Amino acid sequence: MTPVARSSRVRAARQLAKRALRERSRLFLAEGPQAVREALDGPGGSRVRELFVTAPARSRHRDLVDAVIRAGAPVHEVSGEIMAELAQTVTPQGLVAVCPFLDVPLAELVAAAPALMVVLVNVRDPGNAGTVLRTADAAGAAGVIFADACVDPYNSKCVRSSAGSLFHLPLVVGVDARAATAALRGAGLMILAADGRAATGLDDLLEAGRLAQPTAWIFGNEAWGLPAELGKLADDSVAVPIYGRAESLNLAAAAAVCLYASARAHQAPGARARPGVPRSSPDALGSDYVAS
Amino acid sequence: MTPVARSSRVRAARQLAKRALRERSRLFLAEGPQAVREALDGPGGSRVRELFVTAPARSRHRDLVDAVIRAGAPVHEVSGEIMAELAQTVTPQGLVAVCPFLDVPLAELVAAAPALMVVLVNVRDPGNAGTVLRTADAAGAAGVIFADACVDPYNSKCVRSSAGSLFHLPLVVGVDARAATAALRGAGLMILAADGRAATGLDDLLEAGRLAQPTAWIFGNEAWGLPAELGKLADDSVAVPIYGRAESLNLAAAAAVCLYASARAHQAPGARARPGVPRSSPDALGSDYVAS
Repeated sequence: MTPVARSSRVRAARQLAKRALRERSRLFLAEGPQAVREALDGPGGSRVRELFVTAPARSRHRDLVDAVIRAGAPVHEVSGEIMAELAQTVTPQGLVAVCPFLDVPLAELVAAAPALMVVLVNVRDPGNAGTVLRTADAAGAAGVIFADACVDPYNSKCVRSSAGSLFHLPLVVGVDARAATAALRGAGLMILAADGRAATGLDDLLEAGRLAQPTAWIFGNEAWGLPAELGKLADDSVAVPIYGRAESLNLAAAAAVCLYASARAHQAPGARARPGVPRSSPDALGSDYVAS
Repeated sequence: MTPVARSSRVRAARQLAKRALRERSRLFLAEGPQAVREALDGPGGSRVRELFVTAPARSRHRDLVDAVIRAGAPVHEVSGEIMAELAQTVTPQGLVAVCPFLDVPLAELVAAAPALMVVLVNVRDPGNAGTVLRTADAAGAAGVIFADACVDPYNSKCVRSSAGSLFHLPLVVGVDARAATAALRGAGLMILAADGRAATGLDDLLEAGRLAQPTAWIFGNEAWGLPAELGKLADDSVAVPIYGRAESLNLAAAAAVCLYASARAHQAPGARARPGVPRSSPDALGSDYVAS
């Protein structure tokens, strides 16, 4: 590999930091050993199209680099300086993979008869979106829909915050919230909008046994919540109860409480939806390659 | 107020960006209208010692500035340039208050017979710590203990992520996790350590009805979890079940699931601990003055 060739590859990869250029090529960057491992282990085989690695990272993660080579993708060894240009983190871990977009058409996701779904509407913070993706994956959701003016799930901060979950569960991107809601209702899902101002509390639904049925949760923007007309599209708007003096929960915490309430209700005997069998996490709370 | 006097106040306030200088003066900075409002409404009266405000923010938040003046604290009008030096955010909101430290002695918190407590051990990320504070407040916890080598709760990012909750519930800072656990057990609390590797799942505890009793939850570091010897100090180590393919939950999401499981169990008829009466949040999910 000549330095010239390398530099043209680096230049092409660097452009993927910009949303418009990612969308043109339908490629994005996944950074760090955990992301590369998840990209290699995707359900449809390896998602790694190309790997950039520093010499120290190559000896530290020989297994990963060998797996990329076996999967037939080119590996480019680069200097720490070039890695710093490619990586979006302050302390790069020395590995950046170029991966194809992972999103699927709405119809494909809906056809799979999902028991638990997440619809994000106008969620703007990539760290929030990535954390919700990770929580949705943990709670056994069948997929996550990025509707209306959501942040790009292929944004590097979203990829990092998802801690690999971006590669685990189907995504739908760039759809209208109204169309997504209609399709999910057509597939038999109850549509619940999380809204701190709602009269119905999460505990009311739990006590009425309503969470046992297949459910799609809609979560709105961090600051201004859900547009009123979207709340109307839902079968119910639901508030996570506030027992103390906090004004509200942050988006990712509210999503965790709602999704785990559904997941647990789906496990109950007689539930109409059973998303999965629980297992303990192999790691502590963590294995975070990003603290978010 | 002369420019010289102002500049010496600004210099003193700027120093509060550093942990060592905060600890020397036991003062910290609270930024933005939400934080200033919460600092004014503290249980023991106003916590605002001094307020820096830009002219545009002064006219936008006249009620807040007037309340600070009525509470007897000096108000310094500063230029946007000086505000940018004081504020720790990229787009400052034009208001920064100097407030005294809020933490209380461990014995004081324990003497209040808390029904739900949070112990953070070696949590390093200020955004995580602040989000857990906010969630603990929402779930009706009686206080949060920052044990061992935790991040400083008065770090500006932690203050922002707590969205005002820092001012709502008692904090204990700089104690040993072992001492905190012993004191809480002495006060009759069950000690649960959140640990993704634990054999006991959260659902097992719920089904056994064990969460109805007064409980302290220990949460460890984002990346390496709880030290093994701390797990041994707990009555049980508990895993949030993973229903999908995620390796783990992030700290704030796991804390939200655990604390809300306790809060709900405490509301059940016959529970030994009733931390509070639920109410709906006045705002959507948000009112975040930081998206985290």
